[in-house]
Formats: sequence, C-alpha cells, structure tokens
Amino acid sequence: MKLAVVALGGNSLIHPKERGTAEKQIKRVNKTISHLKPLARKFTLVLTHGSGPQVGNLLFQQKLSKKTLPEMPLDTLDSMVQGQLGYWIQQAVENVLHKNAVTIITRVLVDKSDNAFKHPTKPIGQKSWKKMVASPIPIQIIDVEKIKALVKNNFVVIACGGGGIPVIKKVGKFSGVEAVVDKDHATQKLASQLKADTIIFLTDVQYVFYNYGKSSQKPLRKLSIENAIKYLKDNQFEEGSMKPKIEASVEFLKKGGKKVLITSPEKLNLALKGKAGTVVE
Amino acid sequence: MKLAVVALGGNSLIHPKERGTAEKQIKRVNKTISHLKPLARKFTLVLTHGSGPQVGNLLFQQKLSKKTLPEMPLDTLDSMVQGQLGYWIQQAVENVLHKNAVTIITRVLVDKSDNAFKHPTKPIGQKSWKKMVASPIPIQIIDVEKIKALVKNNFVVIACGGGGIPVIKKVGKFSGVEAVVDKDHATQKLASQLKADTIIFLTDVQYVFYNYGKSSQKPLRKLSIENAIKYLKDNQFEEGSMKPKIEASVEFLKKGGKKVLITSPEKLNLALKGKAGTVVE
Repeated sequence: MKLAVVALGGNSLIHPKERGTAEKQIKRVNKTISHLKPLARKFTLVLTHGSGPQVGNLLFQQKLSKKTLPEMPLDTLDSMVQGQLGYWIQQAVENVLHKNAVTIITRVLVDKSDNAFKHPTKPIGQKSWKKMVASPIPIQIIDVEKIKALVKNNFVVIACGGGGIPVIKKVGKFSGVEAVVDKDHATQKLASQLKADTIIFLTDVQYVFYNYGKSSQKPLRKLSIENAIKYLKDNQFEEGSMKPKIEASVEFLKKGGKKVLITSPEKLNLALKGKAGTVVE
Repeated sequence: MKLAVVALGGNSLIHPKERGTAEKQIKRVNKTISHLKPLARKFTLVLTHGSGPQVGNLLFQQKLSKKTLPEMPLDTLDSMVQGQLGYWIQQAVENVLHKNAVTIITRVLVDKSDNAFKHPTKPIGQKSWKKMVASPIPIQIIDVEKIKALVKNNFVVIACGGGGIPVIKKVGKFSGVEAVVDKDHATQKLASQLKADTIIFLTDVQYVFYNYGKSSQKPLRKLSIENAIKYLKDNQFEEGSMKPKIEASVEFLKKGGKKVLITSPEKLNLALKGKAGTVVE
C-alpha cells in the first residue's frame, strides 16, 4: 500500500472554545480518527498532529507552580504533550480503526543560528497565557529511521507531535532548545524523508480559498504548484494557518511527493472521491 | 547479541532531595546512562524506568491550576511523563552511548476487577502532595510487538516508563484507568514477552541484603530461586522497594529468563565482572 502522512489540526483534537477535560478531548480525538476509515483502507498511515493548546496549558501550570517546582523548558513540554496526545490518538486508532498504532517521541533538528530565534513569531497557549516563541525551520526529522522500521511492520505511526521536539547538534551531541517547530513544515519533512505518496492536511475548512474572507472568495478545487507559488507571493494565505500548509505542499511536491489534499476531517470521505477538498499537485 | 532489559530506578533519574530542574535531571540521566557503556557492548538493550517523582510533580501542578484548567487523569499523566523521561533518556543514550534510541509510549493491560482498585497502596508524589493510588498487576504489555520490531532493527528501546500506562479492555476497546503499575513487575512482563536473556534492576544499593538494616545484615552475592521464594515468605524484603524486584526476578526465571542482576548504576561495571551486585538465577 502507498503511504499517506496525515496532519491532524489542533482543533480536531480539542474544541477551540472548550476548557478540554481529558474525557472531552479523547471523545474529539475518537471522532476525528473515525473520519480516517476510508483512508485507512487505501493507505498505510503516519499521523502527525498539532499541540498548541495542550502545550499552552502545561506552560500555564508550570508558571502557576514555579515557587514550588522548577518550570520545565519548552522542549520538555513538547515531549510531554507528544506522550499525552500520542497515547490518546494511538488508542483511538486501535479502538476505532482497528489498526495497531504506536507513538514515537520525535525530535526535529533545527539550526541555532536560524533567524527565528531572534524574532519569535509563533503564538502558543490560549487567552491570557498566550506566548510568542521562536519557530525555526525543521532541517531533518532525527528519529525517521525508527518510524520507517515501524511503517514497514504495518503499524500506524503517530510521530512529530506538535511539530516535533526542536533539537540542535553541537560537537556531535543533541540538546533541546526553547522553540516550537511548525507542524505543517515538520509534516512535509517527515513525508519527504519517508518518501510518502501523499500528504493530507486536515484543518477547519473543507477547501483552500482564493480571496479568503472577501466577498470574492472562491474555493480552489485544484491548485497547481505554479499557482500555489504565485498565490503565496500574492499573500493569499493566512500566516500560521493556510500559508504553512501551502508552502509545505509546494516543498513536498518539489521533493518528489505526488499529491497533497487539504480538507476538513468531516469532508475527507467526499474529498477522497473528488467531491470536496483542495488537491495540490 | 543477547537481550537485556534494564530497569532504571527513580533515583537514578532525579536526586531524591533535589527540586529537580530539567538541567539537573538531564545531567543525572546522562550520568546513569554513562554507566551502561560496558553493558551496551555485550547486550542489545531495552530500558524501562520509574517516574514517581515526575508524576507527583504533574499531579501537584494539575491540582494547583484546577480552577482554570481541567485536571488530567493519572493514565494521561503517565503518558506525559513517558514522553518527558523517554526524551531525556533517549537523547542520553545517543549522546553518551552513541547508540540509536527510541521511546515507545507503552500501555499495560490490567484487570478492572483487580483487588488493588479497592485498596490503593502505591504512594506517588513527594512530600505534601503524596497520594496513594491503586497498583494493579500487569497482565500484558499491550505494545510489545512494536518494541520487538524496533529491537530487531538494533535500536535501544525505552519502554514501559513508570510501569506503563494502565489500560483495561472492555467490549474490545481499550481505556485508561487511574492507577500506577509497579515498574519492576511491568519490567518482568516486558522481559518475558520479549524473551530477554537478562533483567538488570538498577537501584540505590549495590547488593540485595539479608536482614537489611539490622546489625546482622549481609549482602547476598548469589540468590537461588528457592532462597528468593523462601526469603519473600519470611518478609525479608521491603515493600515497594526490594520486594517487587525479587518477586519479579522469581517470575522472570520461572518464565524462562536466564539471569537477574540487582545493583546500583555505579557498581554495574564491577557487577558484570562478578565483583559486585546480587545475581538471582
């Protein structure tokens, strides 16, 4: 079977307006995963996911208890949330899709001299405890060989949670850094390194739109790599939302990927039949 | 190469009397892992580890912020700490032992009708936020096939952190439960399911002692399975400390395991030469 890397958007794991008990979050994860049924029949799956709200919650809890307990740095918080969401997603895949699933703690190599460290642009957390952090470019998914070994054994692999744990290499040694890697760009790196056939970005909208939010907005059913590049130059796509997905799509196709599909979890089944979603190819 | 499952005691990851910043904990993890060098030349390694203090810290943080954020249940906290410590340990193995390492979020099957749920006996946390929770018997390591696939590919696998995430199965579906599985018993289950040759329990003392803490105490250099059973009946070993290790040793040898070694990380090198540690066989 061909390999598809599916990126689950943050809102498909936690309701943007809910406080998010474990019970409610798990219910939402199960629902999202149930939409992958038709996909799981056609493709071997690797799942990536966002984790902004969950990392934000942990950040808040660290701040509130810092008089008693030392605050953990952001890379460690990333690893905690990979465990948390990985556990929930993996169990949902087994309970709902009846496929064996596994979560891999995944590190992503970044460059300490990346400009992002001078200009933090990535918002994490919710409401009053929102914080801007650096979002460096992912150079390489460090743990990709482990993911490959598991994919070969037909497991559904959950990897690169929250964009992966950002790590630098200095004198041959890895160490974590305070940053958050963009999930869509990390997904592209992973998909390209795995030589995946397809990336599927699951997000809040069923299409990518041209002139999004304007009266002239129209859904893009097909988007060529040339138009994608053109529209990116024209600032057609929202920062931190559709823009990184389109950038990642262009990069994936340039690196040999066959196809990218962007849609909502609810419309995925229709999209696979060509009746919804935006195909970039 | 033969397979050894190495259980890292809680104190080998965090100093029992320190507040434990990430920096200090990572330093301690690196130190502990450095003691595995001679072992890593002779054996393929799977590492398990305790996580009591770290889960306790998370519990405390959840309580402190519960007015703003919903508290996560214990199984979810387990998954978070598996991510956290797995990340640190895996990076230490790569930086210090120069072996490729991978962390697997690991679930352990338990029985909802286990008596432990009526009589919580396991202390978690530190100082004022200590709490007693249920410690059911581990029936099976659910994620063992994934661990096998990675071991076959020569990765050092970090698994079963904190004894694994306790999960029950009901009408074919897994769900997490509020409990903590004993790390030593979970380590035995994992080692037996992996058909490992050896278990190595790394703990605070370099030997198992007979009459521990009394003036007549003496180190046990060799412990036969028969004497182990006899001494267990005589209550020679401390609950929650040496007792589960000896119980797990007996069970492992009965299930076909060849050898158990109990010692401290610092004495491991000497113990491998037969000059320290307690061998159960």
